[in-house]
Amino acid sequence: MARLTPEEMDRIAREDVPGVAQTGVRFEEIGDGVVRARLPFREDSIRPGGTVNGPTMMGLADIVIFACVLSRIGIVKMAVTTNLNANFLRMPGSVDLIAEGRLIKCGRRLAYGEVFICAEHEPDDPVCHVTAT
Amino acid sequence: MARLTPEEMDRIAREDVPGVAQTGVRFEEIGDGVVRARLPFREDSIRPGGTVNGPTMMGLADIVIFACVLSRIGIVKMAVTTNLNANFLRMPGSVDLIAEGRLIKCGRRLAYGEVFICAEHEPDDPVCHVTAT
Amino acid sequence: MARLTPEEMDRIAREDVPGVAQTGVRFEEIGDGVVRARLPFREDSIRPGGTVNGPTMMGLADIVIFACVLSRIGIVKMAVTTNLNANFLRMPGSVDLIAEGRLIKCGRRLAYGEVFICAEHEPDDPVCHVTAT
Amino acid sequence: MARLTPEEMDRIAREDVPGVAQTGVRFEEIGDGVVRARLPFREDSIRPGGTVNGPTMMGLADIVIFACVLSRIGIVKMAVTTNLNANFLRMPGSVDLIAEGRLIKCGRRLAYGEVFICAEHEPDDPVCHVTAT
Repeated sequence: MARLTPEEMDRIAREDVPGVAQTGVRFEEIGDGVVRARLPFREDSIRPGGTVNGPTMMGLADIVIFACVLSRIGIVKMAVTTNLNANFLRMPGSVDLIAEGRLIKCGRRLAYGEVFICAEHEPDDPVCHVTAT
Repeated sequence: MARLTPEEMDRIAREDVPGVAQTGVRFEEIGDGVVRARLPFREDSIRPGGTVNGPTMMGLADIVIFACVLSRIGIVKMAVTTNLNANFLRMPGSVDLIAEGRLIKCGRRLAYGEVFICAEHEPDDPVCHVTAT
Repeated sequence: MARLTPEEMDRIAREDVPGVAQTGVRFEEIGDGVVRARLPFREDSIRPGGTVNGPTMMGLADIVIFACVLSRIGIVKMAVTTNLNANFLRMPGSVDLIAEGRLIKCGRRLAYGEVFICAEHEPDDPVCHVTAT
Repeated sequence: MARLTPEEMDRIAREDVPGVAQTGVRFEEIGDGVVRARLPFREDSIRPGGTVNGPTMMGLADIVIFACVLSRIGIVKMAVTTNLNANFLRMPGSVDLIAEGRLIKCGRRLAYGEVFICAEHEPDDPVCHVTAT
């Protein structure tokens, strides 16, 4: 069972990572080591071509992995990302993004997970894949 | 010689990547394939611990690599990042960050570069190292 | 349906990548964009601690991704890896390794996939996760 | 001053990582956190196109980073790689490779460094860039 609810995670984002929270990210489902979040489309997250920009997607992935860790170990704010590797697979266009993350390993000192980011309604053709430690 | 001035790059950031520009990034020096930018410390870029957050640093690195490419090939807005790998080495604290990027390779189809991000006044102890394609 | 059989891929490894083939890798199942291979434990692949070393696992992952691409597009030898990111999650010990790879994206110019490497009999606790372009 | 000589590192490679040592890697210079090694060209390290293959270069980079760490902290064999990210920039052809590595950070728990691999006689146009933790 998850040690964190979507409402708690929305609040943590607002209080502790305001720069990310102001992108509008909302947590939809949190299980044990499994998290789904939605990033509503916003005009100020675009890049040339009218598509959501890379840093916005990396910020989304980063907080989703953070939520995956908290869902397993409970609310401990000192977790820090040491490595994040993002691969951008195609342009998402001007739509809401859905990020689905899961823990691959959660040890005492290191946690590692992956996030797939898809355009809403196109779950089989990811726009971005991120791994983070 | 660089095919881009710091003033042109500041303008490109404001017009084309407003979400990144509003972090306050300023380009200080642009040579051929070499770029230095400054990210002033701002309250909304923090994370738990009072330090600049990861997505802010990744956004900074991403636009610095983009500027490195433009400094070599001229102002062509269709360059897209396909891979970005960030390693966070220590917490920077509440200070301005200096990002220094350089192109390692610039071919017809792929460009690749690296960025070191340091806290101001501590140029020998980087807080973050990013490579991007 | 896969455009490649395990036997064809074993032969390609022997003929074209002898340095990797001599580690003893064998392809067990190849579907469309999905590949499973086995690396028998060998004394010369160890590192301090008596465990299979990192380069051996990266070589295994690299050829599994290559096989994933060939299973989709047919036998075309010019595919090259441009980025490989490996995360080592725990030590496997002195056992056979099973690598399961799948394509995440296969476009005209870029293919991207991931590989999980597990110790035999411990499929739920991966020792290594690799992404490659 | 380095806490390791090239001769000691050649011996460590032979004794502890025989699979890598048999590629013929030789350590040429070791300073404090700075290492240069040479990989002589060998027929069994090729891949289609007659060029040194990726796993061979990743193995070279991995042991060079390992040597960088030992040059700083002394001979301690339990250092393990947790992340290795390799970017292949062009094909090296059938020549000796020179790998130059340096530590970027060496803390109590994590060390991080980078390696540039170049074809001999072409030091300004790297074939591969690797970062490792």
